[in-house]
Amino acid sequence: MEIKSDHPTRVILYDTTLRDGAQREGLSLSVQDKLQIAKLLDRLGIPFIEGGWPGANPKDVQFFWQMREEPLTQAELVAFCSTRRPGRTAAEDPMLQAILAAGTRYVTVFGKSWDLHVTQGLGTSLEENLAMIRETLTYLGSQGRRVIYDAEHWFDAYRHNPDYALQTLVTAAEAGAEWLVLCDTNGGSLPHEIAQITAAVLAESHHLRHLPLGIHTHNDSGTAVANALAAVQAGVRMVQGTINGYGERCGNADLCSLIPNLQLKLGYTCLPEEKLQHLTEISRSISEVVNLAPDDHAPFVGLSAFAHKGGIHVSAVQKNPLTYEHIAPEQVGNCRRVVVSEQSGLSNILSKIAGFGFVLDKSDPQVRSILERLKTLELEGYQFEAAEASFELMVRELLGQRSHPFEMLSFNISTTTRSDWSSKDWDPTGGEADVQSLAAVKIVVQGQTRVTAAEGNGPVAALDGALRKALLEFYPQIEQIHLSDYKVRILNGQAGTSAKTRVLVEFSDGHHRWTTVGVSTNIIEASCRALVEGLEYSLLPPSSPLPIDYRSSATATRVS
Amino acid sequence: MEIKSDHPTRVILYDTTLRDGAQREGLSLSVQDKLQIAKLLDRLGIPFIEGGWPGANPKDVQFFWQMREEPLTQAELVAFCSTRRPGRTAAEDPMLQAILAAGTRYVTVFGKSWDLHVTQGLGTSLEENLAMIRETLTYLGSQGRRVIYDAEHWFDAYRHNPDYALQTLVTAAEAGAEWLVLCDTNGGSLPHEIAQITAAVLAESHHLRHLPLGIHTHNDSGTAVANALAAVQAGVRMVQGTINGYGERCGNADLCSLIPNLQLKLGYTCLPEEKLQHLTEISRSISEVVNLAPDDHAPFVGLSAFAHKGGIHVSAVQKNPLTYEHIAPEQVGNCRRVVVSEQSGLSNILSKIAGFGFVLDKSDPQVRSILERLKTLELEGYQFEAAEASFELMVRELLGQRSHPFEMLSFNISTTTRSDWSSKDWDPTGGEADVQSLAAVKIVVQGQTRVTAAEGNGPVAALDGALRKALLEFYPQIEQIHLSDYKVRILNGQAGTSAKTRVLVEFSDGHHRWTTVGVSTNIIEASCRALVEGLEYSLLPPSSPLPIDYRSSATATRVS
Repeated sequence: MEIKSDHPTRVILYDTTLRDGAQREGLSLSVQDKLQIAKLLDRLGIPFIEGGWPGANPKDVQFFWQMREEPLTQAELVAFCSTRRPGRTAAEDPMLQAILAAGTRYVTVFGKSWDLHVTQGLGTSLEENLAMIRETLTYLGSQGRRVIYDAEHWFDAYRHNPDYALQTLVTAAEAGAEWLVLCDTNGGSLPHEIAQITAAVLAESHHLRHLPLGIHTHNDSGTAVANALAAVQAGVRMVQGTINGYGERCGNADLCSLIPNLQLKLGYTCLPEEKLQHLTEISRSISEVVNLAPDDHAPFVGLSAFAHKGGIHVSAVQKNPLTYEHIAPEQVGNCRRVVVSEQSGLSNILSKIAGFGFVLDKSDPQVRSILERLKTLELEGYQFEAAEASFELMVRELLGQRSHPFEMLSFNISTTTRSDWSSKDWDPTGGEADVQSLAAVKIVVQGQTRVTAAEGNGPVAALDGALRKALLEFYPQIEQIHLSDYKVRILNGQAGTSAKTRVLVEFSDGHHRWTTVGVSTNIIEASCRALVEGLEYSLLPPSSPLPIDYRSSATATRVS
Repeated sequence: MEIKSDHPTRVILYDTTLRDGAQREGLSLSVQDKLQIAKLLDRLGIPFIEGGWPGANPKDVQFFWQMREEPLTQAELVAFCSTRRPGRTAAEDPMLQAILAAGTRYVTVFGKSWDLHVTQGLGTSLEENLAMIRETLTYLGSQGRRVIYDAEHWFDAYRHNPDYALQTLVTAAEAGAEWLVLCDTNGGSLPHEIAQITAAVLAESHHLRHLPLGIHTHNDSGTAVANALAAVQAGVRMVQGTINGYGERCGNADLCSLIPNLQLKLGYTCLPEEKLQHLTEISRSISEVVNLAPDDHAPFVGLSAFAHKGGIHVSAVQKNPLTYEHIAPEQVGNCRRVVVSEQSGLSNILSKIAGFGFVLDKSDPQVRSILERLKTLELEGYQFEAAEASFELMVRELLGQRSHPFEMLSFNISTTTRSDWSSKDWDPTGGEADVQSLAAVKIVVQGQTRVTAAEGNGPVAALDGALRKALLEFYPQIEQIHLSDYKVRILNGQAGTSAKTRVLVEFSDGHHRWTTVGVSTNIIEASCRALVEGLEYSLLPPSSPLPIDYRSSATATRVS
């Protein structure tokens, strides 16, 4: 397979999530994580996948080793390294031996473009740096490797000393590079500078063997995506970036924004058309693998990217999506969402509850009563936009469609210090809490009363434990459900300890996630409410394929 | 005060965090939150602060009402609204009466630019839309208001029907607008389109009474910041955005990126020079107020924005910061972080503890042990930036200068449902909590043991009550002290109910306020820790006018 910029509207994607992305503070990839991510990127149709710097750490060596066992179906796996060290030959540099051992067809070599980095950073001469570039590329070529050359700090380098910077590129081109990639390593450039300097490089194309150029940008100015677009518009043919914009400091250019911008807005071809629809799924799967919460507000792929809140927006978007959507969300595999809040109008409510399977007419007094209830509860501190499960239960209640699968009659939760506890000697680094919570609950399930108790790290964990003990006997599926997130907000903090507390609890059954809300002046009661609703929601029958049409009569009927 | 674009390099900032920012899914502002944010923006030196749409909801009415009691020191507070409704006069539109009642000097009116929105969205004629713009602006002008005109969907409108779009702007200009703001409402434009269309508008300037232009961008393409920069470079003189880029869907242009890009990179003046250093602090304070975790990877103001990992970067950056930093972090009030270094922070520590009255030398092993302890505790989830009282107690402990005025030996807190409680019938609008908390504590004060108990709305209120009962006998001054704020953050939410909880409690004696922090897997224990420290802090002797100099001898001596 040849990956070539064979057409003026083709842009070659180069993913560096596994190398530059892994530099993000708080992100740590196991070999297994890396293998999973490589497969996901391959499935998305990314042509170049940079796997890491084999030799720099044992993990990357192992990753490349395992990749030889299970090669990618489409993509080229690329090994990444620097030019040889100053003052030794390429063949003698153990770093380059490790690169060869990784066994990839392509190697990306980064070299210094900026004189300041050569003299101050590497502590060597400008001539030796050129030799390092030349000899590294020549050596890798002699060993059958195809080389992508990353010109580190290119834009800063060019601003400081354009002649020397260009010499490094000419050297790489003459030593056999296939691509020359201009890197904005510090992320400080703005789009107009990227455009100008890229154009200046292209004007020197005859000295660079007419090699195609690439662009590698960082987000320190908040313009990584725009910088890459500016470079493509100036004539660059390869774009480097990471999924979800992971990367050191403020991250790399986010491929999840770049790809749809290039393909849907600028008319370039990056991915096969049918693959673009997998973008949202791949973005979220990779955030699962790296165990970082997805950014709900990410362009194109975020949960909120096509969420409509204001009443005016919702009614307009229903008439014509173009009015408030820049692309059709399905093009990137995302979907439109209508968010309910006190700012919602009737049309928000209607479309939301249609999603629960209830079709009502705008003039139906039940719709108004749902809206009224929503506003009353939001005044009390409820917030349903992040707690759709509680909203659905509230709607069911008002429509007479809520079957309480259990009723909790009382609880008592006590939290007690252990015997050797003291406020004076308390060691916060001890790990385990020095206090213990115990919850007892009384519940009626299917006409039968149960009294159960459980211990926990905290009062909410204890309550959760006690509830489950009572429910498992009747609803064994509860076992699959766990709390996946827990948020507390004090609503009127100024009122001190008598302030109202809003608790949001997220649940998961391994496939789906749902969130409930509870509000009370007592944090335990607020948590209890959210817990009860979350478990109740999990016991709802799977949503019916036929929505119930409330428009034709006063009672529920199916849409025929 | 006049806010004018009186100089070609001046860019006027217009903040819409309180209005467009509040559209962010998951963000909900109380009136109190809005007042706090307005003050922070005023302190930063933002000239225009859009406060909301008075009349659209009771909260915004109340906000503008309260702002009349406590006006801003520098900024113009702006009310936001649409043009009058179709088919009625401006004077008869109750929406505009609510705007006038808000009592601001400036009003921002948004109108439709896009024919599609007029005919399909509003369902009215193109002529009526022009009349709505004209009459709304004329009416507000006749009532002494100065008007900023937001041309909604400007860029889409211009692409679809440039003639009609321009007619709407001409109408607004002739009807007395002071500014014409081009809005990329759907966020779908890319920088080159913004530049082209802005230039086309400026070419029509003679029809627009040479009014200055503004830009309002959204981040749906991941280019909101670059889009605003492109408009400024094309000649726009007002930039609208939000702090931290909060906003509907993918957010608005982030002022925290825009301001330093404009001021430090492009040479425009936005903020007084000394204010720019408050940017990081204001960004983080606002994320505290709205209770959203700050984005650590945000450009310029994020915790990781100037974080360097070990090795090449660190040594290079220490030789010359220019090598890996696009700006000096101090310029925006952020700081360099060397992720695995013990060196960082010593001078911070020294200056902080000098504020408590302890003067130590950098080489003193005690300083290092304070730094070590700080790092250990921050790893455990503590955060002392917002809890200096706890930090001072920790420093005193390590210097042997902490006299525990009391020691708590045990507590037991139980929370119980009232007799008629049921999860099924629970009415969240009932006001009083339906559960009651009771706390019992055992304390040693001045060698005497006391066991006390108290009831409360919630477990923390009960604990606070019991503690006070025991302490009042010995320290009557405790009576003056009350809890003025209480904040809870779950640190690793994904761990569900076994996550760690960080509690910040703010105390006040009517004159001073101080904050303490507690962290535990048990929320009750975390709250207890913060409570105990807050009360202990109130019992510290008034800080001595003479700092204790630790430099001259091993024991504490006064500076003479």
